[in-house]
Amino acid sequence: MSRLNEECGVFGVWQHESAAQLTYYGLHSLQHRGQEGAGIVVSNGKRLKGHRDLGLLSEVFANPNHLDALSGQHAIGHVRYATEGSNSLHNIQPFLFHFYDRSVAICHNGNLVNARSLRRELEINGAVFHSTSDTEVIMHLIRRSQASTFEEALKEGLRQVKGGFTYLVMTNEALYGAVDPNGIRPLILGKFRQGGYVLASETCAIDVVGADFVCDICAGEYIVIDKNGYRIERYADSVTPAVSAMEYVYFARPDSTIAGINVHAARKQSGKQLAKEAPAPEADMVIGVPNSSLSAASGYAEYSGLPYEMGLVKNQYVGRTFIQPAQALREQGVRMKLSAVRDIVKGKKIVLVDDSIVRGTTSKRIVRLLKDAGAAEVHVRIASPEFLFPCFYGIDVSQSAELISAHKTFEEVCTYIDADSLAFLSLEGLIQSIGLNEDAPYSGLCVESFTGDYPAGLYDYEQNYLANLTPIQQTYLATHPQFFNKEGQVCQTHTNKPE
Amino acid sequence: MSRLNEECGVFGVWQHESAAQLTYYGLHSLQHRGQEGAGIVVSNGKRLKGHRDLGLLSEVFANPNHLDALSGQHAIGHVRYATEGSNSLHNIQPFLFHFYDRSVAICHNGNLVNARSLRRELEINGAVFHSTSDTEVIMHLIRRSQASTFEEALKEGLRQVKGGFTYLVMTNEALYGAVDPNGIRPLILGKFRQGGYVLASETCAIDVVGADFVCDICAGEYIVIDKNGYRIERYADSVTPAVSAMEYVYFARPDSTIAGINVHAARKQSGKQLAKEAPAPEADMVIGVPNSSLSAASGYAEYSGLPYEMGLVKNQYVGRTFIQPAQALREQGVRMKLSAVRDIVKGKKIVLVDDSIVRGTTSKRIVRLLKDAGAAEVHVRIASPEFLFPCFYGIDVSQSAELISAHKTFEEVCTYIDADSLAFLSLEGLIQSIGLNEDAPYSGLCVESFTGDYPAGLYDYEQNYLANLTPIQQTYLATHPQFFNKEGQVCQTHTNKPE
Amino acid sequence: MSRLNEECGVFGVWQHESAAQLTYYGLHSLQHRGQEGAGIVVSNGKRLKGHRDLGLLSEVFANPNHLDALSGQHAIGHVRYATEGSNSLHNIQPFLFHFYDRSVAICHNGNLVNARSLRRELEINGAVFHSTSDTEVIMHLIRRSQASTFEEALKEGLRQVKGGFTYLVMTNEALYGAVDPNGIRPLILGKFRQGGYVLASETCAIDVVGADFVCDICAGEYIVIDKNGYRIERYADSVTPAVSAMEYVYFARPDSTIAGINVHAARKQSGKQLAKEAPAPEADMVIGVPNSSLSAASGYAEYSGLPYEMGLVKNQYVGRTFIQPAQALREQGVRMKLSAVRDIVKGKKIVLVDDSIVRGTTSKRIVRLLKDAGAAEVHVRIASPEFLFPCFYGIDVSQSAELISAHKTFEEVCTYIDADSLAFLSLEGLIQSIGLNEDAPYSGLCVESFTGDYPAGLYDYEQNYLANLTPIQQTYLATHPQFFNKEGQVCQTHTNKPE
Amino acid sequence: MSRLNEECGVFGVWQHESAAQLTYYGLHSLQHRGQEGAGIVVSNGKRLKGHRDLGLLSEVFANPNHLDALSGQHAIGHVRYATEGSNSLHNIQPFLFHFYDRSVAICHNGNLVNARSLRRELEINGAVFHSTSDTEVIMHLIRRSQASTFEEALKEGLRQVKGGFTYLVMTNEALYGAVDPNGIRPLILGKFRQGGYVLASETCAIDVVGADFVCDICAGEYIVIDKNGYRIERYADSVTPAVSAMEYVYFARPDSTIAGINVHAARKQSGKQLAKEAPAPEADMVIGVPNSSLSAASGYAEYSGLPYEMGLVKNQYVGRTFIQPAQALREQGVRMKLSAVRDIVKGKKIVLVDDSIVRGTTSKRIVRLLKDAGAAEVHVRIASPEFLFPCFYGIDVSQSAELISAHKTFEEVCTYIDADSLAFLSLEGLIQSIGLNEDAPYSGLCVESFTGDYPAGLYDYEQNYLANLTPIQQTYLATHPQFFNKEGQVCQTHTNKPE
Repeated sequence: MSRLNEECGVFGVWQHESAAQLTYYGLHSLQHRGQEGAGIVVSNGKRLKGHRDLGLLSEVFANPNHLDALSGQHAIGHVRYATEGSNSLHNIQPFLFHFYDRSVAICHNGNLVNARSLRRELEINGAVFHSTSDTEVIMHLIRRSQASTFEEALKEGLRQVKGGFTYLVMTNEALYGAVDPNGIRPLILGKFRQGGYVLASETCAIDVVGADFVCDICAGEYIVIDKNGYRIERYADSVTPAVSAMEYVYFARPDSTIAGINVHAARKQSGKQLAKEAPAPEADMVIGVPNSSLSAASGYAEYSGLPYEMGLVKNQYVGRTFIQPAQALREQGVRMKLSAVRDIVKGKKIVLVDDSIVRGTTSKRIVRLLKDAGAAEVHVRIASPEFLFPCFYGIDVSQSAELISAHKTFEEVCTYIDADSLAFLSLEGLIQSIGLNEDAPYSGLCVESFTGDYPAGLYDYEQNYLANLTPIQQTYLATHPQFFNKEGQVCQTHTNKPE
Repeated sequence: MSRLNEECGVFGVWQHESAAQLTYYGLHSLQHRGQEGAGIVVSNGKRLKGHRDLGLLSEVFANPNHLDALSGQHAIGHVRYATEGSNSLHNIQPFLFHFYDRSVAICHNGNLVNARSLRRELEINGAVFHSTSDTEVIMHLIRRSQASTFEEALKEGLRQVKGGFTYLVMTNEALYGAVDPNGIRPLILGKFRQGGYVLASETCAIDVVGADFVCDICAGEYIVIDKNGYRIERYADSVTPAVSAMEYVYFARPDSTIAGINVHAARKQSGKQLAKEAPAPEADMVIGVPNSSLSAASGYAEYSGLPYEMGLVKNQYVGRTFIQPAQALREQGVRMKLSAVRDIVKGKKIVLVDDSIVRGTTSKRIVRLLKDAGAAEVHVRIASPEFLFPCFYGIDVSQSAELISAHKTFEEVCTYIDADSLAFLSLEGLIQSIGLNEDAPYSGLCVESFTGDYPAGLYDYEQNYLANLTPIQQTYLATHPQFFNKEGQVCQTHTNKPE
Repeated sequence: MSRLNEECGVFGVWQHESAAQLTYYGLHSLQHRGQEGAGIVVSNGKRLKGHRDLGLLSEVFANPNHLDALSGQHAIGHVRYATEGSNSLHNIQPFLFHFYDRSVAICHNGNLVNARSLRRELEINGAVFHSTSDTEVIMHLIRRSQASTFEEALKEGLRQVKGGFTYLVMTNEALYGAVDPNGIRPLILGKFRQGGYVLASETCAIDVVGADFVCDICAGEYIVIDKNGYRIERYADSVTPAVSAMEYVYFARPDSTIAGINVHAARKQSGKQLAKEAPAPEADMVIGVPNSSLSAASGYAEYSGLPYEMGLVKNQYVGRTFIQPAQALREQGVRMKLSAVRDIVKGKKIVLVDDSIVRGTTSKRIVRLLKDAGAAEVHVRIASPEFLFPCFYGIDVSQSAELISAHKTFEEVCTYIDADSLAFLSLEGLIQSIGLNEDAPYSGLCVESFTGDYPAGLYDYEQNYLANLTPIQQTYLATHPQFFNKEGQVCQTHTNKPE
Repeated sequence: MSRLNEECGVFGVWQHESAAQLTYYGLHSLQHRGQEGAGIVVSNGKRLKGHRDLGLLSEVFANPNHLDALSGQHAIGHVRYATEGSNSLHNIQPFLFHFYDRSVAICHNGNLVNARSLRRELEINGAVFHSTSDTEVIMHLIRRSQASTFEEALKEGLRQVKGGFTYLVMTNEALYGAVDPNGIRPLILGKFRQGGYVLASETCAIDVVGADFVCDICAGEYIVIDKNGYRIERYADSVTPAVSAMEYVYFARPDSTIAGINVHAARKQSGKQLAKEAPAPEADMVIGVPNSSLSAASGYAEYSGLPYEMGLVKNQYVGRTFIQPAQALREQGVRMKLSAVRDIVKGKKIVLVDDSIVRGTTSKRIVRLLKDAGAAEVHVRIASPEFLFPCFYGIDVSQSAELISAHKTFEEVCTYIDADSLAFLSLEGLIQSIGLNEDAPYSGLCVESFTGDYPAGLYDYEQNYLANLTPIQQTYLATHPQFFNKEGQVCQTHTNKPE
């Protein structure tokens, strides 16, 4: 609905007899990153084959024969969030290509900002695309490369694509992983005790298959895993670390660790920082919006000394085929997904902690839910700064028009959602709470949603983005220093790194 | 797996133009009470028709035409847990019968203890049963009754069935609800502001459809709702309130209120009481087993002053078609459903709060999970007494052989699950925490799982139950007073009601 | 559509290790007798279990696990035509009943004429029915019988039901087959060379499983097959052979033999007889309506010396999920199912042979099809008499209103279907062509559709039937002798047996 | 099994408000040309969209929403036979491509003989293929063309592909159809009376949608249909008509007319010619193998004066999900698909007419079937010459190893199939019976299966073909003149045209 959607999750295994099964379990723990499609391709060293379909992983492999048929020691897999209009089997990954000289499987997390122009240029030169997915672009770049080896051709391709991304590429000879020059999207290497490797979008997937964490693949790097072990190299000429702050704030699972920082811990610390910056001393209790805001809420409660209560219950059985209530029933009070616990909240002054406000409609609905259940006051506390700017690096919010904070002032938002008070965490507070401490702008975080400062540039999106800036966005940009230019280069010395 | 399973949830609507849709949403909020089958029957005042199938509600009605086809102002619905061997469409409720003189739909929550003997007697007299479900029995009793009205025949039938149960019965003229003579299973009446009524197994379902709570249907009562409004009467000669304690401890949703007591509040209070009875002063943090033990864990944390942390993460996408990992992969460390958060628990002394220990295998697995993730110590605290005796009133634990506490002493259980310490909440502590305060044995709770004291008697189960008592169970029974006899009658003055 | 539909086909195997598989193949060859549902129940001597669902046999068992799961040496199966309004899984056979003392599976071909009154009487005495199918009635009769053995109880039940029927009944101890007192519906016994028996609605099913024909089960008989072999007995007090003429004319497969007469041979002879009774000397060719009328057409061609041509082609891929063209497209000429071969029929005078005219709409459409394709003349020849009276013994034409010949004279029908000439085979001609030669009315055929003479009586249908007789029907009845009364007894000496 | 399989059928509509529905019905009548996959793409003049899947047409569109969603006035569709190993959704047509400047849908019937070399050359130049289908090749050729218009680019592409083929290509502006330079595969233009056009693989599809025949698209021609009407041009430099004889002998529906010759009429004439060339004077009856040989059998019967009987019955319900009997059951006599009619054939001398013998296993099985049913003698008569050479133009027999006549002499084949006698129609007899009478080798027929004379050349298949010639094939080639060389050019004056 009005929540954010991550584009994808990737997972790969090299050298394990149950490669497809492990990929299934790894992808399963990444299901929160994409619920509209899934697929797995395996290699037995001689031949690649795969299965993919629309739906949750467990639906795609509902017939266990599909998984059983995927025998081989190597595998890559993908879960996917389908962007508007592209909900077609064509776009489900991994893509599998059979050339006369080699077979290649490829999958991708994130979003390219120059895919459209690359694609048009390729088409003008005779390329035939079969999907509408950005992922296909790099395959064409690789095949048209004059480089003498597949690895060199891959590097050439990686240097041409811009944005926030990770790739997994598998041939019968090797498994490759690659990360964009800012490290916006995470990719982690794990190792099985008995040998064999795993690559995944989050550490939770490494844990779930019983592998041990080895290292992150960092900004601008790629990894090759083959019969000789693994080797990590940098393909990008220049790199500037800028890990997506939204991975910590909202997307990643609380049990994952990104760039050395545990997600639950970062969220809990954000909640404490929020309680420090924006206390609510007269409140009776703290309630978090399940499930992504519970860590921050418990941090807020702990710092503030207020009791932490379960005032909202999330219905866990709302699946894809769930029939939404018609407008008339919604107006009459039929509520799915979230229920307020009347006997907990009745007559109480509540601190409601949420991770972010995007369109504002969800927050408005939750405040209303609590007040309908008898809450005396609802003080909304958001564990991240105002969401002011669209995202083009793999989050499904690419239009300023969708962002309430790009159109309304802080006070107007408070009025709109009908809260008794509203506070956002400061940018500095968020950066400190996460505590990445890289020697880079924003301590190494990608915080473009809060600042309009795009570390990987805008490219194909620039024209439309600039044409649609709202007065609030223009004012923000005019009064805050920017560290990156439109091609994503660091364009000035950054001095405001929080100490 | 090794968790408890409730048999069913029921929901009914009388006089609302979207009766089937509301039943769908009501059942949806009761999905935790049964995930193996679902069905809805509607009446338009002239004709009953229905749809039912195996699977989650959203699967049963995955084709929205099935719901759209159910037009009518009255409806009853059912979600069901399929007991072993009976996983057949035949047994999915509501049952719908078309007689020459009347059509009747019926559904049922709970379990009868004299169904087998009633059924055999009916078969000897020529009855033909089509399901293996207890629910069908009362239909035969009603049809063979010589009573002059349907309501009288229903009352006759209700007087013959023994156990813990609620029934919903619908004809084109009226909707009936009935509760067993101990009120073991809950049934609640709600009302729409614009008119029309709703009956449900839990108040969360009343809330979710935007209706207002009216009252509980109490022990031994039935309700008739028809064009003249509603009327509640008692059918049972004698009643002794004994509300299932396990509804508070484990089954019900935290936002439901049973017999006036909110479930989350009862659980949180149990957690506080547990912290008082069994402190763990040197621990670093409190962790609850998601999702049913989070309330108790936060209570324990609040009372003890320890931080409440998210050390276990539950994977929310484990559905029916999920492919379980083979033994070899499990041994290698592949873990689904629950993950421990390494960066939270590593090196820490943990209080692990859970609601109950049934077979012990789950507890053992979770302790192992935490220690594998680096936990220094795991102190297990259970927010209910030892689960000593089987249940025959609608919980899927009817064999003493399944209960670890019936076979092992407290210390042996601690060793088995490999905890650094183990404590159970006292019976008195549980009774006080729930705080029902009825003038009845155990303050009006049904605590047979902890005491072997069966308020509705044993009937068909008696012989097998007695033949399989373990020494631990025998010792318990010999040293604790019992208030009910084998037919469920109060057989001695109860004096140990906790003050 | 406007064609006749048979109610069902039955098949059973006793003592073969692949009982379920053989039943699958046997039912498959009987698929023409019912396409809306199918099921198989097996016994391994200890336990009965089954699978059944809506759809073609290959759809019901599309998942081969369903068939593989049916292990056992004995089996019965059923294919079914779903009558209006009863298209529900409840009614798919075989029915499987588990009683405390015995399990019973039962399936049924044909139709009872006193089911409604039996059912009401049973319900008044407390019986609970679960299906709307007639088949369930006999199960209640058996269970309420006071007879000392199952076989005696079955006989008591058989004596109470009236109509045209065959039953298969299976317990863990024996397989029973039974035929109505007129032998209206066929049931055949076959034997495997290596031992074991088979019962089937048609001999084609005996052939298809590689068994040898043993004998027909005759009017009023039942068979018991058990570990001692088989035994055939008569249960009916009086029997009068009256084999359904429509089995020869339309329903049965041409490769089946009923009561000793091959169906193709009977049809070809009917065609020859038709050519003799109603020649068309100036015609250029003979065309049959595929597929049921091809035998008669080739007989007509052979007798008349005219060439037999393929002027109509039937589309063999019209399945259940086929999307029918909307009215606008039909008017524009979109034609499914049957196509006329323009280059064959253009400018030609055609003899069109069909097996029967029921509503007249199909005949009208085919004549139109041929003329649109350029046929100069279409002379319709029907290889059976005028279809004047409804059928109540297992054919889906139970309303006089549906029968064009009950409402229009011969000349009016010819005009309605726009034929250049029209002729029907005489009743005598049909009886002679089939050549059954039993010493019974109509030589032992059931020809009620042509004569209104119902060998098994009318019972529950009588009142409505009499109230709706058309003038044409009344005239026919007034001018032709009737041999059976309303209870199906032979009420006068029959003398008009064709010699 | 051992029968021949045609690759595909195509159908297109230009300018009709029910374009998708008509394409559905058109494809339905072409279902015999391909049963493994189907698809439809529509255009509303602005946008192309489609649906395709594995299975029969009625399965692909089982959910009617899929067809309803295809709104637009133009459409193309495809039914497909899946060649070994390529049974994947990727290969289901029509293919739909969205380029930055244009969208294109394309589908294809037949087989290219130079696809592999074209594909490799394209891949070496950077092309990325997504399917294993030949159809994709021409899209790449078109996109890489430097021609100034789409039509010119299409012509360039057509000139590069070799083999037997028809293409349908649709953009938002026009519908194109094209036929190979020999006209091996048919493509027919039809017209709706109210305006609008249709293109189809067979005339039966034109008839079925109520359109009128306009003309064949001939060898080396293409057609453009757009808002200005239609225009037919020749793209090939040189053309030599060579219509596939197997379309007449086996593939096409009897009600279709190819190159002016009705298929049923050609078959019946072949049967008469066969009776003339190879009489069986002592036989009792003629039986055809259903369904493709019934026309020839009736011709044989008519010429010989023997009765034409239905001695074999085909089971019409054998679908894709049908479970085949295991070997043990087959040996025991379980027979699906075809049944012999015992009461017809017992003791009789039979002429069995079939259209062709490919592997010989089917013929052997049918002879056995008839003898098992009691036939005294079986004289096999084949209504085409010996099938000596593989086919590369769209029939699924591309290995000499599969052809019994390439390995066994006439007498050995007779012995192998256990016939009492065997005869094949002569090549001259077949050519005369079809009666095409073009001034070209073999009167304008493509008879490569009987002669090894490949009118469209061999290209990529040549090396393997020559390496695997059997002695019988070599002898034939050495003793018979060949008219075409390996590139498909006419290489010598043909003089043996039958008069």
